Amino acid sequence: MKLASYMISGRSSYGVVIDDEILDIGGRPGAPATLLDALTVPQASLLELPAGTHPAGSDRIAVSDVTWLPPIWNSDRIICVGLNYRSHVLELGREPPEHPMLFVRFADSLVGQDEPLVRPRASQMFDFEAELAVVIGKGGRHIAAERAMEHVAGFAGFNDGSIRDFQFHSGQFLSGKSFWRSGAFGPWIVTADEVGDISNLEIRALLNGQEMQRARFDDLLFGVPDLIAYISQVMPLQTGDVIATGTTGGVGAARNPQVWMKPGDVIEVVIDKIGTLRNTIVDEADAAA
Amino acid sequence: MKLASYMISGRSSYGVVIDDEILDIGGRPGAPATLLDALTVPQASLLELPAGTHPAGSDRIAVSDVTWLPPIWNSDRIICVGLNYRSHVLELGREPPEHPMLFVRFADSLVGQDEPLVRPRASQMFDFEAELAVVIGKGGRHIAAERAMEHVAGFAGFNDGSIRDFQFHSGQFLSGKSFWRSGAFGPWIVTADEVGDISNLEIRALLNGQEMQRARFDDLLFGVPDLIAYISQVMPLQTGDVIATGTTGGVGAARNPQVWMKPGDVIEVVIDKIGTLRNTIVDEADAAA
Repeated sequence: MKLASYMISGRSSYGVVIDDEILDIGGRPGAPATLLDALTVPQASLLELPAGTHPAGSDRIAVSDVTWLPPIWNSDRIICVGLNYRSHVLELGREPPEHPMLFVRFADSLVGQDEPLVRPRASQMFDFEAELAVVIGKGGRHIAAERAMEHVAGFAGFNDGSIRDFQFHSGQFLSGKSFWRSGAFGPWIVTADEVGDISNLEIRALLNGQEMQRARFDDLLFGVPDLIAYISQVMPLQTGDVIATGTTGGVGAARNPQVWMKPGDVIEVVIDKIGTLRNTIVDEADAAA
Repeated sequence: MKLASYMISGRSSYGVVIDDEILDIGGRPGAPATLLDALTVPQASLLELPAGTHPAGSDRIAVSDVTWLPPIWNSDRIICVGLNYRSHVLELGREPPEHPMLFVRFADSLVGQDEPLVRPRASQMFDFEAELAVVIGKGGRHIAAERAMEHVAGFAGFNDGSIRDFQFHSGQFLSGKSFWRSGAFGPWIVTADEVGDISNLEIRALLNGQEMQRARFDDLLFGVPDLIAYISQVMPLQTGDVIATGTTGGVGAARNPQVWMKPGDVIEVVIDKIGTLRNTIVDEADAAA
């Protein structure tokens, strides 16, 4: 099942994407307010809610009629992982880390499918990072790696867009990772049952159609169970928490010459069984506030 | 004015602290739901709301009857600053940084006044960091340093409690800074008009009554206006955002021998014109979930 969040007729909603249509769940009477809230109830119960009188006239919406939101857009608990592909760490000449490298992005640093990514006024060193995002369904603390997948609601694409000079302004990444609308998340969450084992799946970044990054998830240094086990030692994971699992080699900053995203560029994160997260770059001066 | 958040009669509320009493605002009909929401309206309008039939029988509550919450408890946008006291940077033998070092804590890593701080199961290297917290009143982007103080609602005490081994597990601080209930924030927000110029105010950390840290805010490397200007370049600041401005020398990890907080210890952050943020340490096994 593909679960998406979007704006329709001026309100935020969410639903199930089926080909070119969305079955709108958020418009049903008694439905949880957001997709995050909906993750706390059994999915089948959402489909059993009466359709009601839908604001858009029907509970079938054409995907072309929505403005996509990040599937989880009302939480700032977005935990990102650095240096998490074995081959990427080795190509950098570094030792594989003993523990996951974790940092945070806030919700307003992310946009949904087809929404413009914003190159900020402060810097033109705007880089892409194709990543797999994991969305937590059932929260918990001290989750054993062996039980971790029971806590995963599903997977999505993620572009951990980075302002490289700000990322290295201090030892800490936050300022380079939290620029307003500098990253993307979506287009939807594909539920864990539909994705199954991720190890043979591939992720790619395409900039203007040209492949810039490619990796398989069996190259992850800390796999999803390890990440969940580590993070839940530190804090209780909550429903709707997002873990962006890190990126592989090929980012613009590491190229010779370096490649930065500029207005008009199209950046895509393509993941097997999940789909394509696609965004165009605009300058901050041209972005709607 | 001292604005505090707390639990009373099983609900969360907020109000104005006057000596040993709290004038309960959150219980007034039509009042904003939380102190964060209340920062978006003029303070005088809160006092003009009718008292209504107050759940506790009166809108005057004894401070001894409440369970304190962090003044802002329903936001994960808590931005912390590292290495931000000139004398502390110099005593570490480091060059003063050119840009603020920023990282994040989530809300569930913090407790309010008198609530236990939790030493986690995962580590005993539990350290204190006395800090001044700034609470944003009016949001904004690209805020000039000269106008920054117009965006400050007030100030509070902050203990950026740190699990030192986890803090240095990777290059990024998050895992050492986000342990569940490992930090404290409060006891209240003192509004900016009441605090006035902070430069001559002093902050101290007392562990079991013994002074461990002491600094004056004129030793801040990046003062409050500079921090607001820098952060708002990156992201729009929002009402209720918290900026913890960093700590000075004297933390437990830097002592010889090292000092770690252990169950039964009392840690206090004392700030002129703001008050004392006081917490006792418990082990995770003994903490209420």
